[in-house]
Amino acid sequence: MAFKVGLLGLGTVGTGTVEILRDPAQRHPLLQDIVIHKVGVRSIDKPRIVPAELLTTDLESIVSDPEIDIVIEVMGGLEPARSLMLKAIANKKHVVTANKAAIARFGDEIFTAASKAGVYVLLEAAVGGGIPVIEPIKKSLCANRINAVTGIVNGTTNYILTRMQLEGGDFTEILSDAQKLGYAEADPTADVDGMDAADKIAILASLAFGGRIKLPEVYCEGIRNVSAIEIVYAEKLGFVIKLLAIAKRKSSDELEVRVHPTLVPKSHPLASVNDVYNAILIEGDPIGQVMFFGRGAGAGPTASAVVADVLNIAALLKVERATQQSEPPTLDPLLACSHQHYCTIAPMKDLSTRFYARFLTRDDPGVIGKLGTCFGNHEVSLESVVQVGIRDGAAEIVVVTHQVQEGNFREALNQIEQMNAIEKVASVLRVL
Amino acid sequence: MAFKVGLLGLGTVGTGTVEILRDPAQRHPLLQDIVIHKVGVRSIDKPRIVPAELLTTDLESIVSDPEIDIVIEVMGGLEPARSLMLKAIANKKHVVTANKAAIARFGDEIFTAASKAGVYVLLEAAVGGGIPVIEPIKKSLCANRINAVTGIVNGTTNYILTRMQLEGGDFTEILSDAQKLGYAEADPTADVDGMDAADKIAILASLAFGGRIKLPEVYCEGIRNVSAIEIVYAEKLGFVIKLLAIAKRKSSDELEVRVHPTLVPKSHPLASVNDVYNAILIEGDPIGQVMFFGRGAGAGPTASAVVADVLNIAALLKVERATQQSEPPTLDPLLACSHQHYCTIAPMKDLSTRFYARFLTRDDPGVIGKLGTCFGNHEVSLESVVQVGIRDGAAEIVVVTHQVQEGNFREALNQIEQMNAIEKVASVLRVL
Repeated sequence: MAFKVGLLGLGTVGTGTVEILRDPAQRHPLLQDIVIHKVGVRSIDKPRIVPAELLTTDLESIVSDPEIDIVIEVMGGLEPARSLMLKAIANKKHVVTANKAAIARFGDEIFTAASKAGVYVLLEAAVGGGIPVIEPIKKSLCANRINAVTGIVNGTTNYILTRMQLEGGDFTEILSDAQKLGYAEADPTADVDGMDAADKIAILASLAFGGRIKLPEVYCEGIRNVSAIEIVYAEKLGFVIKLLAIAKRKSSDELEVRVHPTLVPKSHPLASVNDVYNAILIEGDPIGQVMFFGRGAGAGPTASAVVADVLNIAALLKVERATQQSEPPTLDPLLACSHQHYCTIAPMKDLSTRFYARFLTRDDPGVIGKLGTCFGNHEVSLESVVQVGIRDGAAEIVVVTHQVQEGNFREALNQIEQMNAIEKVASVLRVL
Repeated sequence: MAFKVGLLGLGTVGTGTVEILRDPAQRHPLLQDIVIHKVGVRSIDKPRIVPAELLTTDLESIVSDPEIDIVIEVMGGLEPARSLMLKAIANKKHVVTANKAAIARFGDEIFTAASKAGVYVLLEAAVGGGIPVIEPIKKSLCANRINAVTGIVNGTTNYILTRMQLEGGDFTEILSDAQKLGYAEADPTADVDGMDAADKIAILASLAFGGRIKLPEVYCEGIRNVSAIEIVYAEKLGFVIKLLAIAKRKSSDELEVRVHPTLVPKSHPLASVNDVYNAILIEGDPIGQVMFFGRGAGAGPTASAVVADVLNIAALLKVERATQQSEPPTLDPLLACSHQHYCTIAPMKDLSTRFYARFLTRDDPGVIGKLGTCFGNHEVSLESVVQVGIRDGAAEIVVVTHQVQEGNFREALNQIEQMNAIEKVASVLRVL
């Protein structure tokens, strides 16, 4: 029984996908049933790893080809990826995509169309490269009430932070070196400003909590302001700094969904996830903590996830074809998207978290008392206040709080900034 | 659409399973379709968390009840678990089991019967408690050619080794303390002698390499001979000692499958998996390394895996019932067992590995030369030979080899044991 696939795009991930499909030995036998029917590319003049007769620049012809069962979208970008996926769905084709940006923004439209058409849209490759995390959330963890998903889901920023940690270097110089080495893109904005991680945590939150997520409601803070000094102080306090993407059940009807650099205790399982590696820690009832770890990017790992999705669909089609078809087809309720409502995301001011803050102040014996009093007036309870030294003629004071309301902390901070004794609020970071 | 389940057993895992099934809020909506129809127990007199009218001591009546769709075997042990599962299968019931011992021994018989009857036998809970690893191997990693599975899959031994590492205590005293604390059973044999880990790696190898495994061919060495001294020397050399369960593709038609204490480099992802935690590292082409980490035992995590399997089957039944039934039913080829042949497991003498060995010798200047020459004569290349001190009046020498053939190393060791200068081969361990 053959299943015909059409690829949109033949870049890094598309090429990796074709390589697996054409080399089935010692992989699952179902791979032998998958046939590459058409491949859509921008230019047919370049030498390619697929025979020229499979290539076309007419992408519309792929999503409307009646022979094709599954469309693999690995072109990336928002448009025409979105429109092509919607057309494929309208033509009753199942879709496999690696496109986190398009799914995080247009997931509502795409999954509503897919439910209506009775087709699957699978996206394992969109988060964590090849690391199985989406399928495990959907299937292996489906008996759990998931309480939190905490991930290091962006390899570029994790590489930069790991090098800053090990070498003591500064953000800008390590970023530029990472760009030379190919670990960061020429335009690093989506990575270093946290938008890529925000796309991914929006997708994970949606799956883990069974509701849709409005991307603009995801709080997003990147790593540009993490300085070498903060890494040194965090280290002394027993932490490493990681860009975490966090989705948490705040109450029965409200979530926290956020991306920001975070001080992580060294004993925490995420603290030792270094370099370009990704890891996603899921906390559920009754499973407790479970973590998935691996390379979060690269042609091979990403293609591994794309082909797994293709085989998952083929397996279900195999069952369906062996029985009589029903119209519209019934979908596997664990794999299909079953929710249509939007999750309520709590505003950041309601967040309960610990904070790290570094102040430059006048070298004045009363200043610690003034800081403490001001925080106390705003119900911000402090774990430690330490004058760590003198920098640029100012006394340097590091504060770590207990769990506090972010809104209260910010109000205290506003007042502190007005104080004559305070020269600068040099850094504010959250603590896990 | 309701799916009726019958439980065999209501111990720790059975109770955990019932607790999830009766509390579906904020878990997957499909849970609401699962109905507990009967529960088989040894005695109906004890107070139980299910109504008395569901209880029966007649386990046969459960596996033959025409109303029941899925039998959940959480009684453990070899018999009558095996016979009951086979009868359930013969009666066309799907089976979910947490029974690694029965599956590792009777998997052949059970899966052959299941293929014939067209039913699923799912066993996520058999390895790693709630950690998703079996479903990810079957589904999320199905596009990969898996090259190795390396796991810390026994919580009791990992707890003991972790405490030996941290406290410097000896095996026997920590084992007895672990028994008091409930981390080790009264009869700890299956855990400390590696048999539990051998059952689990046999199951993982079978799934990862698509062939059956004969359990007696799995090499199995426990941790009784790991002494506090070895842990200290391993630490000095940059290693921790872990009980690893390893399955590796040796060639296109031969596997290595083995359990033994192993020196693991501190930088390796498995080195920091401590206490009762489990982790399974999978290496595949093209995914590279991917690791799954979590609690490997306990009522909650194990029940999480059992109920996930139940929901996976219910999801497929939902699709099947919505379409017309075919006879025999077609199974999802990724979830069903599709292989019938046995894998060839290479003998340990053909294993290529590094070794650590500690010798007590006469304090004689020529002894290092003699050791080196003897190893050299057997093509055993050494990485280091260090006289670490004097113990009990004998010179203590620690040897670490490069990758060598185990057979060659053992032959050299036999000759060394005969030498006059050698008082004792105090320890031999493999190195990752």
